[in-house]
Amino acid sequence: MQALEERIRKDGIIKPGNVLKVDSFLNHQMDVSLFVEMAREWKRLFSDRTINKILTIEASGIGIACIVAAEFNVPVVFAKKSQSINLDGEMYTTKIESFTHKKSYDVIVSKKFLSKDDHILVIDDFLANGCAINGLLEIIESAGATVEGVGIAIEKGFQQGGKLIRDRGVRVESLAIVDSMDCETGSIIFR
Amino acid sequence: MQALEERIRKDGIIKPGNVLKVDSFLNHQMDVSLFVEMAREWKRLFSDRTINKILTIEASGIGIACIVAAEFNVPVVFAKKSQSINLDGEMYTTKIESFTHKKSYDVIVSKKFLSKDDHILVIDDFLANGCAINGLLEIIESAGATVEGVGIAIEKGFQQGGKLIRDRGVRVESLAIVDSMDCETGSIIFR
Repeated sequence: MQALEERIRKDGIIKPGNVLKVDSFLNHQMDVSLFVEMAREWKRLFSDRTINKILTIEASGIGIACIVAAEFNVPVVFAKKSQSINLDGEMYTTKIESFTHKKSYDVIVSKKFLSKDDHILVIDDFLANGCAINGLLEIIESAGATVEGVGIAIEKGFQQGGKLIRDRGVRVESLAIVDSMDCETGSIIFR
Repeated sequence: MQALEERIRKDGIIKPGNVLKVDSFLNHQMDVSLFVEMAREWKRLFSDRTINKILTIEASGIGIACIVAAEFNVPVVFAKKSQSINLDGEMYTTKIESFTHKKSYDVIVSKKFLSKDDHILVIDDFLANGCAINGLLEIIESAGATVEGVGIAIEKGFQQGGKLIRDRGVRVESLAIVDSMDCETGSIIFR
């Protein structure tokens, strides 16, 4: 998606260790008008699918997911990263390794909000090694729900996540796929 | 706001310890069409103010804030609850006590995304003892920015947060104020 690639080139900052900082428009400050454009693009890409719910994971996925949900006119469920006293009853749980934070954490979704009747679009800001998305797919599978697709803002094409998930037969639509980037020169190559 | 009060009566669950669970539509599963109605109500209530940015705190504030931001056509900044390796540079920081999780945590906002030129609407899902909102107000003050108001989905009117913040001269618009609730009978009284 051209608008997102241009924005990454303009405002993204490449750091050592293959870190791409997009906190000025995607995951700390959020340019919601860009999110609306992204949501329309996913609506177009998944127009052949019947989707009744968006699933994402806290925290930075939630904002994009809500704008996408407004476009699809469906609710959002977000997976929570730790047990809360406000969440009782039965839960789907899985464990996710975080590339960014270099630790693993438990992720939970209440069984009340996912069922075998649900047709899910998974939305997240980043796809790198795929651990977060894989965790969400496991939760969907536990619920017996159907995954209609995965919508990613920025995929790091040089990491394995996208390939692993597509190899499972899941349709992944990433709006920008970074094939390589160089923190010395600041150059970035999109697929 | 009638639609929100009705929804709380219909789907809210009152638990011992003055816990009001609204996880089926507000902060785990999210009814984004309700959020759009709420956003329009805040737009009406704050129509006399010039607002150029929404500030919220992760995680459950983000979804509402993004829908509000789409209505106001401004960006969102969300305060993060712990230091991330993806957040470098200088930060505004404060410490917040969590009523829900019974612990305190550090909250940070990058100095890049708040300045003295900003006119901020603070958005959050709940206001109880006011610790989270007070933390956000401290951060706004540190930045020298102007707080134009605070928009809350559900205020627990029997706790002190709303009074403390209004006593500071800050305009608070809560779309539902719970004056009392009873976990035995399930009854709930709105202001």
